[in-house]
Amino acid sequence: MRLSRFFMPTMKETPADAQIASHRLMLRAGMVRQASAGIYSWLPLGYRVLRKIIRIVEEEQDAIGCQQVLMPTIQSADLWRQSGRYDAYGPEMLRITDRHERDMLYGPTNEEQITQIFADSVRSYRDLPKMLYHIQWKFRDEVRPRFGVMRGREFLMKDAYSFDLDYEGARKSYQKHFVSYLKTYERMGLKAIPMAADTGPIGGDMSHEFLILADTGESEIACHKDFLDNDWLDGVDLDGDLEGVVNTFTAKYAATDEKRDPAAEAALGGDLVTARGIEVGHIFYFGKKYSEPMGARVAGPDGQEVVCEMGSYGIGVSRLVGAIIEASHDEAGIVWPEPVAPFRIGLVNLRSGDAACDAACEGMYEQLRNAGQEVLYDDRNERAGGKFADMDLIGLPWQLIAGPRGLEKDMVELKNRKTGERQEISRESALARLTDD
Amino acid sequence: MRLSRFFMPTMKETPADAQIASHRLMLRAGMVRQASAGIYSWLPLGYRVLRKIIRIVEEEQDAIGCQQVLMPTIQSADLWRQSGRYDAYGPEMLRITDRHERDMLYGPTNEEQITQIFADSVRSYRDLPKMLYHIQWKFRDEVRPRFGVMRGREFLMKDAYSFDLDYEGARKSYQKHFVSYLKTYERMGLKAIPMAADTGPIGGDMSHEFLILADTGESEIACHKDFLDNDWLDGVDLDGDLEGVVNTFTAKYAATDEKRDPAAEAALGGDLVTARGIEVGHIFYFGKKYSEPMGARVAGPDGQEVVCEMGSYGIGVSRLVGAIIEASHDEAGIVWPEPVAPFRIGLVNLRSGDAACDAACEGMYEQLRNAGQEVLYDDRNERAGGKFADMDLIGLPWQLIAGPRGLEKDMVELKNRKTGERQEISRESALARLTDD
Repeated sequence: MRLSRFFMPTMKETPADAQIASHRLMLRAGMVRQASAGIYSWLPLGYRVLRKIIRIVEEEQDAIGCQQVLMPTIQSADLWRQSGRYDAYGPEMLRITDRHERDMLYGPTNEEQITQIFADSVRSYRDLPKMLYHIQWKFRDEVRPRFGVMRGREFLMKDAYSFDLDYEGARKSYQKHFVSYLKTYERMGLKAIPMAADTGPIGGDMSHEFLILADTGESEIACHKDFLDNDWLDGVDLDGDLEGVVNTFTAKYAATDEKRDPAAEAALGGDLVTARGIEVGHIFYFGKKYSEPMGARVAGPDGQEVVCEMGSYGIGVSRLVGAIIEASHDEAGIVWPEPVAPFRIGLVNLRSGDAACDAACEGMYEQLRNAGQEVLYDDRNERAGGKFADMDLIGLPWQLIAGPRGLEKDMVELKNRKTGERQEISRESALARLTDD
Repeated sequence: MRLSRFFMPTMKETPADAQIASHRLMLRAGMVRQASAGIYSWLPLGYRVLRKIIRIVEEEQDAIGCQQVLMPTIQSADLWRQSGRYDAYGPEMLRITDRHERDMLYGPTNEEQITQIFADSVRSYRDLPKMLYHIQWKFRDEVRPRFGVMRGREFLMKDAYSFDLDYEGARKSYQKHFVSYLKTYERMGLKAIPMAADTGPIGGDMSHEFLILADTGESEIACHKDFLDNDWLDGVDLDGDLEGVVNTFTAKYAATDEKRDPAAEAALGGDLVTARGIEVGHIFYFGKKYSEPMGARVAGPDGQEVVCEMGSYGIGVSRLVGAIIEASHDEAGIVWPEPVAPFRIGLVNLRSGDAACDAACEGMYEQLRNAGQEVLYDDRNERAGGKFADMDLIGLPWQLIAGPRGLEKDMVELKNRKTGERQEISRESALARLTDD
């Protein structure tokens, strides 16, 4: 993509109302624009990141046999009356009356809807287990939306639901998601830590939040230092028994602020780490809470009707864009992990309009794209300083910088955004380096 | 995908309230389920088709330099007050009050929102032309929603918007979309005919609806027979001057019911064709209708401010799923054009549980998938008759049928869903045929 044509309205000034780094950087980099309080439009740069995150989430959901559906945003209030949540849900639910005076709502989540779909269609234990997910916009009418896409009112969430014949089955579905989530975040270049979360009246041990570490994170956490070091997922077979892997994780100490245990921490001694984190996912088992009132029953092997066991599994997809920036930025701007970068390479022409410089850059642009690379080519008539600043701001992993002086010797500069390392190397070596995977 | 695990709740009975073929077939094939009046959940089979359509639309929008953004579903009423449409829009607009008593609405379209984004960000004629699109759910509170996804309340639309410095530029943007739309529909296996549509107070000739032909179409149309025959788009350069190509199309007679011209039709004689059609797209130029009240101005080459010229370009994405079925089905079910089929191949195991039959089918399933083919493998313990009926109902382009008798001689049956042609051929030939592209 040529930057001269790309719609990427960067801002030099830091917007006054943006309190946290990701909000400031997303506005400054032209990734999003606020439409109204807590509601954002995604501009091309931001939308590309959102898509990369969606793709990874989809691939990892598909990998555990979770099937993609798409439920609508507007739901009937009657559905929520069946589960008893319509009146219980507070003012965060956006309630709507349609032209026929029917009570509707903008879905803040989809337990009722998916349970109805399942109950209408599945009759036999032979069709179990079943896991379904969708990635759809949700609305929660936060009283004070803030922090940009980190706590918006309209937000994109992946929510999955599992249906099993019994508790053992539900435990397997839960474990699949537990491991799948660790893989999902790892693929985005993130270190996510599962933390035991409240199970409420259901009880048991099947509720975990996943937090990623960021110095600017919203909450304090404490955990065993092993969470930061190990690559525990190598070679895990998603179709195999995951109890052992899950136990390895859950056996180690990890606690959010409200759940910290001074005695356990004292026992850890030097193995204790405290850090700040951002919640990016939550999985939980809730048994028959929805299947019972909404009639999600199947005929069991003996012909008797069985009420299904359910769990739900959420990932904050639009929130992740902000969370990744919180976890990975510096003074100059965003530092994208490669798997979610909007483009992998930024090609900077230091003297647009200079015939030799233009020709060299056009050539590299074409070669890189032919090699399947995603390149943002800064071909604008701007000063070098402005181009460098924009490139650092938008945080593409690699900057390939070409100016007339270097090109006389066929040399270009290759900069790694994350390490800051710069190398003057030949054009050929730079291209080989960037296309060598 | 193994059908024994795939969530595809087919129905034997025709749902009573479904009046048209696509609605009936989408319900029967387990593609969608109604959530409430005019609002549908997309189940895995339907969602796969929706995704294929989305992908084609995206590729063709990208090909003309239209850039993808994503605007939210919920908009502020104030935005629509600026354009004067808030009060003018009738009861089809879903009006919402949030917890702070602010007037909001579920966007039925996005002219206001995109114009505001543009106006906030673009300052100079150097940044023009600019074309932006998004694919997002819209809501129109139809008084009597019906015909399934063909006239739903919550529906998925691709809407694009162009910003130009002058009329000549706007005309070029319009022509790009005109040609792009013909290509888009052609890629879905559809014959779309552009029909002059009302321009209202704007006047001129830049408003066209695109209709695809279907015997069960909602409206009668008449056109020159050339529209049905020719492949006019071959070799068209989208970056070149498109005036000629567009004129070739618009010079031929084509009219929707309310615009038919008896004299013109009489003159055509034997070249006249009448048919039924379904609207699947609409493009129109509207000048300064939104840019003027919403302040979308740029500094022109002479430093003077210029109000931008705009156009908008819609494709009914979810509607297309129904429209394609209307255009392509028979007594037994859907007949998917290959580019939008949920899977390309249906592999039918006529005797699941028979060791030899299972082994042969598993082998073919793996070989086809390794060759990059999308295969739905019917491995269920069902009678052959039920499997055939389901396969015809869901309409995959190719059926590969394997039973114990044929396999003794290493023979399978390959059936083309569209032509109905069946061939008994060797397993090897069948696989070669299906992977030969």
